[in-house]
Amino acid sequence: MPKKDKGKLRVIPLGGLNEIGKNMTVLEYGEDIIIIDCGLGFPDEDMPGIDLVIPDITYLEANRERIRGIVLTHGHEDHIGAIPYCLRQINPPVYGTKLTLGIIKNKLEEHVLPYEPSLNCVNAGQTVKLGAFSIEFIHVNHSIADACALAITTPLGTVVHSGDFKLDITPIDGEMMNITRLGEIGRRGVLLLMCESTNAERPGYTPSEKKVGKSLEYIFNTNADKRIVIATFSSNVHRVQQIINVSARHGRKVAITGRSMLNIIGAAVELGYMTVPDGVLVDINDIKRYKPEELTLVTTGSQGEPMSALYRMAFSDHSQVTLGRNDVVILSSSAIPGNEKLVGRIINELSKNGIGVLHDASLEVHVSGHACQEELKLLQALLKPKYFMPVHGEYRHLSANRELALDMGIEDRNIFISDIGKVLEIDVNGARYAGAVPAGKVLVDGYGVGDVGNIVLRDRRHLSQDGLIVVVASVDLDARLLLSEPDIISRGFVYVRESEELMEEIRALATEAITDRLERSDKADRMDLKTSVKDVLSKYLYNKTKRKPMVLPVIVNV
Amino acid sequence: MPKKDKGKLRVIPLGGLNEIGKNMTVLEYGEDIIIIDCGLGFPDEDMPGIDLVIPDITYLEANRERIRGIVLTHGHEDHIGAIPYCLRQINPPVYGTKLTLGIIKNKLEEHVLPYEPSLNCVNAGQTVKLGAFSIEFIHVNHSIADACALAITTPLGTVVHSGDFKLDITPIDGEMMNITRLGEIGRRGVLLLMCESTNAERPGYTPSEKKVGKSLEYIFNTNADKRIVIATFSSNVHRVQQIINVSARHGRKVAITGRSMLNIIGAAVELGYMTVPDGVLVDINDIKRYKPEELTLVTTGSQGEPMSALYRMAFSDHSQVTLGRNDVVILSSSAIPGNEKLVGRIINELSKNGIGVLHDASLEVHVSGHACQEELKLLQALLKPKYFMPVHGEYRHLSANRELALDMGIEDRNIFISDIGKVLEIDVNGARYAGAVPAGKVLVDGYGVGDVGNIVLRDRRHLSQDGLIVVVASVDLDARLLLSEPDIISRGFVYVRESEELMEEIRALATEAITDRLERSDKADRMDLKTSVKDVLSKYLYNKTKRKPMVLPVIVNV
Repeated sequence: MPKKDKGKLRVIPLGGLNEIGKNMTVLEYGEDIIIIDCGLGFPDEDMPGIDLVIPDITYLEANRERIRGIVLTHGHEDHIGAIPYCLRQINPPVYGTKLTLGIIKNKLEEHVLPYEPSLNCVNAGQTVKLGAFSIEFIHVNHSIADACALAITTPLGTVVHSGDFKLDITPIDGEMMNITRLGEIGRRGVLLLMCESTNAERPGYTPSEKKVGKSLEYIFNTNADKRIVIATFSSNVHRVQQIINVSARHGRKVAITGRSMLNIIGAAVELGYMTVPDGVLVDINDIKRYKPEELTLVTTGSQGEPMSALYRMAFSDHSQVTLGRNDVVILSSSAIPGNEKLVGRIINELSKNGIGVLHDASLEVHVSGHACQEELKLLQALLKPKYFMPVHGEYRHLSANRELALDMGIEDRNIFISDIGKVLEIDVNGARYAGAVPAGKVLVDGYGVGDVGNIVLRDRRHLSQDGLIVVVASVDLDARLLLSEPDIISRGFVYVRESEELMEEIRALATEAITDRLERSDKADRMDLKTSVKDVLSKYLYNKTKRKPMVLPVIVNV
Repeated sequence: MPKKDKGKLRVIPLGGLNEIGKNMTVLEYGEDIIIIDCGLGFPDEDMPGIDLVIPDITYLEANRERIRGIVLTHGHEDHIGAIPYCLRQINPPVYGTKLTLGIIKNKLEEHVLPYEPSLNCVNAGQTVKLGAFSIEFIHVNHSIADACALAITTPLGTVVHSGDFKLDITPIDGEMMNITRLGEIGRRGVLLLMCESTNAERPGYTPSEKKVGKSLEYIFNTNADKRIVIATFSSNVHRVQQIINVSARHGRKVAITGRSMLNIIGAAVELGYMTVPDGVLVDINDIKRYKPEELTLVTTGSQGEPMSALYRMAFSDHSQVTLGRNDVVILSSSAIPGNEKLVGRIINELSKNGIGVLHDASLEVHVSGHACQEELKLLQALLKPKYFMPVHGEYRHLSANRELALDMGIEDRNIFISDIGKVLEIDVNGARYAGAVPAGKVLVDGYGVGDVGNIVLRDRRHLSQDGLIVVVASVDLDARLLLSEPDIISRGFVYVRESEELMEEIRALATEAITDRLERSDKADRMDLKTSVKDVLSKYLYNKTKRKPMVLPVIVNV
């Protein structure tokens, strides 16, 4: 019996594959489009000056009228950070849990939109119908409260997107990931599982958030005579809850510092995600009223960010907090790859000033929010998907997740390591790649969105390596004359005051190149003179210094 | 009885404290100076374009005639890498073990000196007399062969410098660190121990190099049908020896690729530090004669270095090696902090091409060459030094090593966390800091040594963040006239073709700033015009774009 054609489901990741962050996935069926998450990424080292990276949504702009909604798994930047930018180009309704929307509202106060966006609150367990799609939000554990996986019913079957998750059997809020519901969905049959891959290289299970509580208890006991300063991710509401709990038990007041920490904790308390015993929270401006041993400070800066509250404390530049030998600092976090040196700088500075520092390496003061191998396999075992697409990670992580799927018995041909822009098409006859849509990185630099591209970055990298030499020459092209010796301006190349000889040589060579070119050819124009100067100087400077400064000749025809 | 004054011993670190690498320490007694190690460091992220960093040896140049020799602990770059640069300024005899000198000779073929340096071979167990100092070389284990600690007899007592070390009870060359001799020296009494701090934050013992051999055996057994490609540090002669051994046992030929690997292995074989069974080594150009399962390739690039052999293999740019599904790649190394992303890039690219990658996280294919906490304490227990100076590391490492010394019962006032340039003076009455000598980082960029300083780096960082705008205007200062609209040249700021409006605005503002200044003041000269243009444009651009490009006004007075 030939299978009845029910149409095609198209799965198009616009971010989060072969990269860390900027997670965004498009699902299409018929005339309907939904978007899962809308995150930002952070710039690589080869993008100097860039503040952040957002997905290229050209495809969505072109299909604006087909978009039924944006559904969000949780409130981390790499899942919601591009919302303020994307909502300038497209304007679909946004669906997410209460905390997720609370964080977005906060963001939208800084990024004012020309209209009032439609933000719709969904609780875990609820289902939203958007065109051909029914999206059920399912509670999962993660390093932020109110995180969900999504089970999306389509005419062709159910697609599950894991979001970011871990299985925490003893979570702080008492709500274990809803594996029962996931199991029920699995029993009904799952067409496609898109599963996060962050910790796919790590064997075993991720420890419970409770473990951190035990370490904190130990630290509070052994530092009973000190002020305790704890830096952590501002969005880790459960971590902060644990810090408040242990502080309250030890009779300490808690003060919070750092803008993003104040914002998110404020939202979490207001929305009921945190329980703060009366009188425990005190204003950071009032901490002088308490003895060191009566205080816990919770701060941003666990990644060593140079403008963060912890950084300013470490370098004696925080207006309310002065650290000293009565303090112990806990980094309740792990360094995100690339931030190790920044974090190290803070540890060094604190140590230098005689301030004790406890960090991940020395005590279990942090656990990951992402599933390790056994948890990833558990999700597969519950859902038994026909097709599997590892998402969220560099190729190494996607590939490790693929290995787990193979272990779990999913056939190789049913596993799709996709890429951003690549279209996976599924119909009753099977699944296959079917072309691509525009996708990529849009760079945000200051107020500019997308105005810095490869050429600008190439120039920045070039300038950063060897600096530049500007050669300014006035010529009279009609008279074929160089009017005076060229001026040489150098920045980022050599220390000019100690390189006068080199500067003189550059001037002489430029003079020679220009006069020579003017004399040899009657037609040589400004462009020809520039080329001559550039060629002569680039070659000379490389031979002389083994450096390649940018040479910018300026020829003024008087 | 008053103590007889025997003169003063001065200990002056010129590198390796509060930094990683560029290890160098000066010992002075009376008219005699000796130098321990002469290493280089690698640039931080805030030193764009810099190739490497060497110690500032101004102090040694000023005391040239008092220097009796340079004594080297081992042949790693961070202990010998500055030799070719320093020997241009000072010319004392150099003492080191055979392999150390072999590596230096290799280096000096690329850095030709205007004279023949005096390189003197010393075996572990031997003593060299240099002025007031007698230096005994004592065998230690490390990730390079022929490493030594130094026991330096001075008129005031014995100073021990640990060099870099670990205690390997089952080392590849059969020679355990000579703890017996160290114990004898300890019994005689030790005035000062300078001890490396690299792993002072890590509890326990560093595993034996033999452990890697067992992992390799397992990997060779489970990949019997594949070509095995192993990347490791070129100087880790024992690691390469193990790779050769396991390959020979499995009937494989070994080919070596990567310039530094060929250099060091060549030297090690020639000097007898490696035993290679006949016929096992084959030329990389001849590998086509063998089946994949008959070959092991040993390569550089374990840190992801973009020009290394492994990088070129991964990105299909190696002239002799094309990787495919018949290959498995082993990274027998751990990423040096800061290199994680580079290493990750190689792992991703290999995974993408279906090539299996085994690295530290997945299997025990690397062990550290540095002592962990128990070994550091063991050294202290053997030597029982009166004074203790932790060396080699950032402050956090030095501080962790200090904690170990406190645990071992050394009094706080006898532990000195020093800094580069800081003088520790010891005499019969005690030890104390006594002033400082010039010390710092000399930056090497291309052929330039020390011609890039803070101003040049600041400009490079500035240029890398937001690029530059050059404004070229011709004026007639006598006539108080701007002769034509200014030219605007932009690099690394915005993509000009898509920012014509902004460029026009810049031109208009520059025109206005210049004409206004010329009209308002009869005395305004070129400098005044430049300042006006710079101020107006910097302010405008920041308000408009939230970026701060470097603004370079060029005013040509015709």
